[in-house]
Amino acid sequence: MIMSQFAAALAAIHFNQDGLVPAIAQQFDSGEVLMMAWMNAEAVRETLESGRVCYWSRSRQGLWRKGETSGQQQRLKELLIDCDGDTLLVKVDQDGVACHTGRRTCFYTAARGQDLIEVEAVKIDPKELYK
Amino acid sequence: MIMSQFAAALAAIHFNQDGLVPAIAQQFDSGEVLMMAWMNAEAVRETLESGRVCYWSRSRQGLWRKGETSGQQQRLKELLIDCDGDTLLVKVDQDGVACHTGRRTCFYTAARGQDLIEVEAVKIDPKELYK
Repeated sequence: MIMSQFAAALAAIHFNQDGLVPAIAQQFDSGEVLMMAWMNAEAVRETLESGRVCYWSRSRQGLWRKGETSGQQQRLKELLIDCDGDTLLVKVDQDGVACHTGRRTCFYTAARGQDLIEVEAVKIDPKELYK
Repeated sequence: MIMSQFAAALAAIHFNQDGLVPAIAQQFDSGEVLMMAWMNAEAVRETLESGRVCYWSRSRQGLWRKGETSGQQQRLKELLIDCDGDTLLVKVDQDGVACHTGRRTCFYTAARGQDLIEVEAVKIDPKELYK
């Protein structure tokens, strides 16, 4: 039964009052932290079942199959649950770039002293991602 | 002025309705994702000022200077803000173990098929951490 196939994982996750859990995406081989987004139970199930990472878009209030518009998909390598069950770490193989700005990761702004410094360059023009 | 020293960073962070932002801690050299916890503005400021990572404990409703009980401190290497300002990545140098279970990271439970598998061993007996 599909419903019970991932029952152990789903039972171990403590979704918040909105039914969501934060999911950190990390490139499995390089270790880059790519992004953080949210999943509901359906997104977790679809991710485990399909092997392609699916989040819950809080702005669109719908499933967000990463890369369905931009083509920059994330293939699941491993889904890990933290010690108190309220955060996920998804190790992925990221096609191209994770960030909608066309950068490899979303974490390209560093707080250094009094300044904010961009530490990562745009790799793909966002116009190319969302044309 | 201390208040304005980190004004640019604080202004770039979008704290949620509880005044908190999720912060992912990553070992700066190995790339291990150690844990995820929450910061309020005061925790961000203290972290940037002191160079030791400080979170906000939602259970204790107070500042949580990582390692103050266990001794397993996190020294800040870099604080990064994501593209929409609602998640932080703190690159740290973690003393010993990050997890209260005595494991290096909190993400030691993998969802593999129908099973949950422990993929990381205890390195320090928790009794030694909290004696």
